[in-house]
Order: sequence, then C-alpha cells, then structure tokens
Amino acid sequence: MEAAKVGLLGLGTVGGGTATVLLRNREQIHKRLGRSIEITHVAALGIADQTLLDANKVRLTEDAFEVVNDPEVDIVVELIGGYTLAKDLVLKAIENGKHVVTANKALIATHGPEIMRAAMKNGVNVAYEAAVAGGIPIIKAVREGLAANRIQWIAGIINGTGNFILTEMRDKGRDFAEVLKEAQALGYAEADPTFDVEGVDAAHKLTILASLAFGIELQFNKCYTEGISKITTEDVNYAGELGYRIKHLGITRITDHGIELRVHPTLIPEKRLIANVDGVMNAVLVQGDAVGPTLYYGAGAGAEPTASAVVADIIDTVRLIGIGAEYKVPLLGYAPEAMSDIPIMSIEDVETACYLRMNALDKPGVLAEVSEVFAQHNISLEAVLQKEPVEGADKVHLVLLTQKVTESNINAAIAEVESFDEIEGSVARIRLEHLD
Amino acid sequence: MEAAKVGLLGLGTVGGGTATVLLRNREQIHKRLGRSIEITHVAALGIADQTLLDANKVRLTEDAFEVVNDPEVDIVVELIGGYTLAKDLVLKAIENGKHVVTANKALIATHGPEIMRAAMKNGVNVAYEAAVAGGIPIIKAVREGLAANRIQWIAGIINGTGNFILTEMRDKGRDFAEVLKEAQALGYAEADPTFDVEGVDAAHKLTILASLAFGIELQFNKCYTEGISKITTEDVNYAGELGYRIKHLGITRITDHGIELRVHPTLIPEKRLIANVDGVMNAVLVQGDAVGPTLYYGAGAGAEPTASAVVADIIDTVRLIGIGAEYKVPLLGYAPEAMSDIPIMSIEDVETACYLRMNALDKPGVLAEVSEVFAQHNISLEAVLQKEPVEGADKVHLVLLTQKVTESNINAAIAEVESFDEIEGSVARIRLEHLD
Repeated sequence: MEAAKVGLLGLGTVGGGTATVLLRNREQIHKRLGRSIEITHVAALGIADQTLLDANKVRLTEDAFEVVNDPEVDIVVELIGGYTLAKDLVLKAIENGKHVVTANKALIATHGPEIMRAAMKNGVNVAYEAAVAGGIPIIKAVREGLAANRIQWIAGIINGTGNFILTEMRDKGRDFAEVLKEAQALGYAEADPTFDVEGVDAAHKLTILASLAFGIELQFNKCYTEGISKITTEDVNYAGELGYRIKHLGITRITDHGIELRVHPTLIPEKRLIANVDGVMNAVLVQGDAVGPTLYYGAGAGAEPTASAVVADIIDTVRLIGIGAEYKVPLLGYAPEAMSDIPIMSIEDVETACYLRMNALDKPGVLAEVSEVFAQHNISLEAVLQKEPVEGADKVHLVLLTQKVTESNINAAIAEVESFDEIEGSVARIRLEHLD
Repeated sequence: MEAAKVGLLGLGTVGGGTATVLLRNREQIHKRLGRSIEITHVAALGIADQTLLDANKVRLTEDAFEVVNDPEVDIVVELIGGYTLAKDLVLKAIENGKHVVTANKALIATHGPEIMRAAMKNGVNVAYEAAVAGGIPIIKAVREGLAANRIQWIAGIINGTGNFILTEMRDKGRDFAEVLKEAQALGYAEADPTFDVEGVDAAHKLTILASLAFGIELQFNKCYTEGISKITTEDVNYAGELGYRIKHLGITRITDHGIELRVHPTLIPEKRLIANVDGVMNAVLVQGDAVGPTLYYGAGAGAEPTASAVVADIIDTVRLIGIGAEYKVPLLGYAPEAMSDIPIMSIEDVETACYLRMNALDKPGVLAEVSEVFAQHNISLEAVLQKEPVEGADKVHLVLLTQKVTESNINAAIAEVESFDEIEGSVARIRLEHLD
C-alpha cells in the first residue's frame, strides 16, 4: 500500500520532535499500522540544518499554504501554534479535503466549534490528542476508554510550568518570583509566562476535556481562570501542616445546577496520588460512575512527549482514511446531534471548601470575632491554625479551613472580615477539594 | 439505525456489572455511539431475580451455545471465565461470524494465539480491554495511544488482592496469612487464592501487555512467576527503612538479549508514584522512547470497573461492524505479518538489583565473610543494614542491597553464603527496580 503523505506546518520544538519520532520509529510504526507514513512537506522559516530533511526527500517551503494546497498531501499537521494563521491554515486544509492533526489547544478551545463544523461538512478528521496533557493519551481515554461511563468530574494538573513552580516552592521554600525566573531560564515557561502561571493554558485544555466528558460545546470564554502568582510559600507551608498540598488544578464537574469549569490553585489531601505528581509532570484524574477514579500521568510538554501524541493521532488518522464518518469516533466524543446544552455555572454558584489566611492583630477576641462572621453566614470551620507572632511583629497569621460553601457566600463573609480594623489587608483564599 | 445486539455469557460479578452499566447508561452510550446497544440474550445458571431481564425483554437461557448460535446476535460477550467452556464458546462464536468481547485474561494469555487466528480468518473483532487491569484503559493506551513509541518497558501492579495484602502488611504491620484471610472474607481473593498471591493472574495480564508492547506472540508459559506468600513484615519494614516499598510487579522489558517477562515481589523507591498505589488499586507504568514514563491508575477489579472496560469494548466493536480488517487496530497491536520472534529471556539471564536478608550468628567476622563472597562474585553492595540482636537471641538480621547483577550470578553467591555455618536457613531475596 502506498505511503500516507504528511505535510508538517512548523518545525519548532513540537514540529522538530514530530519529524524526529516519525523518522526514527518509522519501522516500528509501519509494523503497527501496516502502512508507511512519509513526511513529504515541511513549512518552516529559517531552518538552519536541512540535512535530515534532504536525506528524506522532504520538500521545504516558507509558505505554509503551499503545503495545505498541495494535492499530494493526505494529512496536514499544524504545529505552528497561535490563533490567526493556524486557524486559516487548518480551515483551508479542511476545505481541501485534508485530515488535520494539531497540538494547538488555544486554537481548539477558542475556534473549535467552527473547525469541527467545517471538518464534519468536508468529511475529514481533526485530531488533537497533543492539545491536552502532551504525551498522555487522555483524550483517547475520556472519549473511548471510558465511553461506558457517565463522567462525574475531572481534575487535572495540566500545566507543567505551574506544577514545577509549586513543587519547588514546597520542596525548597523558594519564592514564586524566583522559581518562575528559573523556569524561564530552563525553557519551561514562555518569556511572557502569563499563559502558564495565570491559568490560560490550563483553561484551554480544561475546556476541551469538559466538552469530551459532558458532550457540551467548547466554551473557553466561560471558564473561570485564576493563576498561581499570588500563592506564597507561607500558604504552601500552612497547607502542608494541615495535611494538604497546593496544586494548580483544572476542575470540571457535572452538578444538578450545571457544569463547573474552573482553573485555580487548590488544596488537596497529600495522601491522594495526584498530590504527589511533582515537577513538570502532568496528571489527570477522571471520575466515572462505573469505573470510579482513574488517573493518567506523564509528561505534559516537551518535544518528544508531545510528538508521541501527534504521531499517535497521525497513525489513527491514516488507519481511517477512506471510510465514512459513521465508523469514526465523533470529533468531540458525542454524536453531533446529541450534544448537550447544560449551562456552564458561574463561579459565584460553585460550592467548594476553602483555605483562608489573614493577617490579624495579635490581641484577644479577634478569633472570636472572625469566627462569629462565619457562623452568621452558616459556614462551618473544619480547622483553625493560629501561628505565633514573629518576634517583634504585632500581627499573626490566622488560617481557617471551611467546609463546603458557595462562592458567593464565602465572598460575603470574606468582605465582612476584611472590613475589620483588626484584619490587615485582604484575606487570601484558596479553594480546597478532597477529590473523593 | 437498528440496535446492535449483544449476547451476554455469564451473569456473575462482571456479567451483572456489565448488564447494569449497559442498561443504566443506555442513553449516555447512545449519545456517544449514535446507535443503541441491546442485550438480547443472557446465558446463566440459576438467576434468582429475573425482574430486570424481563423488563428489558432479555431472553434467558442456561445453554450458552444457544446464544453463540443465534443468528440475531452481533456480539458475544464472554464473562464466564476459565479455560475450557469459555474457549469452546468463543471459538464457536467466531466461527459463526460474531464479534467477541471478553474479560478472560486466562483464556487470552493461554489460548490467545488460536483465538486470534480464528478471528482473523473469520474477519471478526476480539476485544479484551477488561482482561488487564480492569477498568483502566491500558490496552488502548499501549496499542493506540503510545503507538508512536518504541516501548522500552512496562511495570505494573496488576493484581489488586496482592496489592491489598502488601499495603496492609506495611501500614498495619500485619502478617501475610492474617491479611489474606481478611481479603478472602472481603471477597477480594478467591477461596483458592493461588492465582492472586502466587502471581498467576498477574502473569496472564503481563503476557498480554508484553505482546502488545513488543509485537511478540502470547507466551504465558515463558513468564517467570513468583508470588508474595514468602514476604514477611520484617522485609516490608527493612525495605521501608532503606527508602523502598515492596510491590508485586509484573515487569516486561526489551533488552539486547531478548525480552524479560517476570512477575515477582519488587522493592521500588518510595518516591515513585507507583510506590504510592495502595490497597486494591492497580497501576501500570509504561516507558516509551518518545513519551518517557506514563502511568495509568484505577480499579483493577470489581463489577462496575471491569464492566466499564467490557462496555467500552462493546462500543468500539459496534462502531466498526461492517468494515474491513484493514481499517481496524490489529488484535495484538501489530500487523500479523510484522510479529516479532525476539525470544523471552530465561530468568537466569535477567539482571536486577537485589535485596537480601539472612539470619546470621551474632559473632565477629560474619559480615566480613559474607561480604567477601559477594566481592568474589564481583557483586557490589549498595547498602548494608545489620540489626541489633533481639534480646536473648544469638542471631541477627543482616540485610544487603546489591547493585545490578544477573540472576545466575546472585544465585551462586547466595548458595555459597547459605553453606556457611554462621548463616541459618535460607537467604530471602527480593528483586529491586529503580524504574527510571
């Protein structure tokens, strides 16, 4: 059988990794697929060393549209990233009847609906395993492996940079800003680290997972997103004293009131397996009604781990070239006519337990006053930690763990506490999940 | 589209779970699949309560062959277990052109080659996700999600009963025999617990994983199998002192000398995520050349977790009814003509680090004598732990960790040490893996 022909758009970290894996494991892949995969085109700017490409008779161009419009190409692999050019290229490829594989979470999370409609209209496949949690085959797990289940919730560490920073803060007592600088030097974080540390990248990925889990449209703009830049080493340490670890989680859950879709720092019990996922590694915990909890762990970024997912998608796509859509897993896991319109909940209506830290004047009665506020708001306290004042200081840290409470209710209580003269500055609030 | 028709053989734990999940999540499954799945037949003996079956117009029979021979049935789901009857039924179903889904690891591991040949000849699908690690979609992960990789090794906790026993021994200092009795009372272990605690069940599963990973034939009879019944709480505690946990692992690895295929108790560093998988839970760690380490965690047994995998297989199978084998993932992950004949290595030739514990007379020079034996065999010691003698005893426990050494070499050294008058009884040996 003739080799399937792949055009690669982009030869950066992931593009380079994809070319490397496809070429190095060519034989292995042929053994699994029963067919060869050939990179016929690469679109990239300023390639320093063309030796490998030339040796494999790959045509190199600076015009990505040339690849997308070449009749010879079966599958376009978009690894440029970003929204605008990537979107135009992907839509053009689809229009030209080509299958598309992409690692672009931003593109899928924000322009997914338009792309999926175009793909269905043109009868082509759009595969995006690499868009969520890098090399972990989590999309396949949720969309196929757990298809028998009603998914109840998903909680994931889905940004490696954020997890690296939180791990260093805990293990070495280092500051957020200092670790961030190191992460940038190591090449983990972008020069503009906003997408990583403010949770935008995680929100893109969570949006995709929620759609696959619950059969809802991709709705990135409804995802509540909070980063880790305000987490202090004190919070990390107090959480530890109370038996918790702070992780930056993406959480989506179906409730009677709608679907929760939220990314924020979260205290989780240190006994949970996912609490022990450290460094740049990712992990996704999926709770199904039949299977119970399952967890998927691996590298969430990097050249070859991401390429592992890209190439798996290419293999799956090649296998199904030429057969009808009715034989394929639907692009978002659900038959298009069966998509649900369950609304995404406002964060105001979400219920979670909370960790609260405040600076209180070191004088009698403050704890009683604060406790009274929570009692009036009908919020039960699970634990209270009052630290010795640092020598010479007149303030103490007061740490509270609440039971489950709606966001609007805890917000009101926090506002009241912050109005006290005995409480300095604002109250730090980190949500807490038991994940059971 | 007409409903796909399923005949269920067996209505025990997994069969009951499968019926429950298929009926309860019927709507959900239809939304994903775009087609209904109907249980038309159930073959089982002595069903006490037929209400649910009658309500869903399921035909009940005591003769499983009636189901296998019914022209109306599209997919036969074999959940009887065991070798003989199950094999006859599965082969007859295949001969009748029916697709087969099974959770029967013993059947696949031992009669897999014959079954796969029959399936290919008749152009039907044989799916067995539930045969390994229950609800964890590990077969899909290895066969499809990681298809871009050369798999380097797999190490799994793939028997829940064994893991429950080892966890209890560590957490509560209880004896093997005592915990086993509790596991039986809880229904985790079979009345005859040999399959669980002597590693046969894990060996069945590992045989399947090795085949999927390396493209080799199923070769259960070549799997080295050692159980946990000789592990003492002392070993568990000494391992802990040295920073390790003892887990019952199935390990398969490709080396320059062939493929390792072995099930045995194993010391692993307590920092590894898989070392923290406790109780009845399963986890499989897969190392690929591109993706690096990935881990898959979940319930390895139980009615609904196993049903989750069975029903996922039914969904996949229904989706592909009517299309040619060339569009399907090969039954063992590799194109039939590309299967490899790399040999399985004898355990004698396998290299691992080792934990050794011996009873030594509490007198000067014993450690020197023992150390000398290992030096002569060119075996380096990583750690030595000599415990204070218990009051009144004249023996001490001497614990050694070796560096990597071939099995035949360490066997020779152990035999020599055991011949010393100062060493009482036999030397306990547990293999040690760093899993990095």
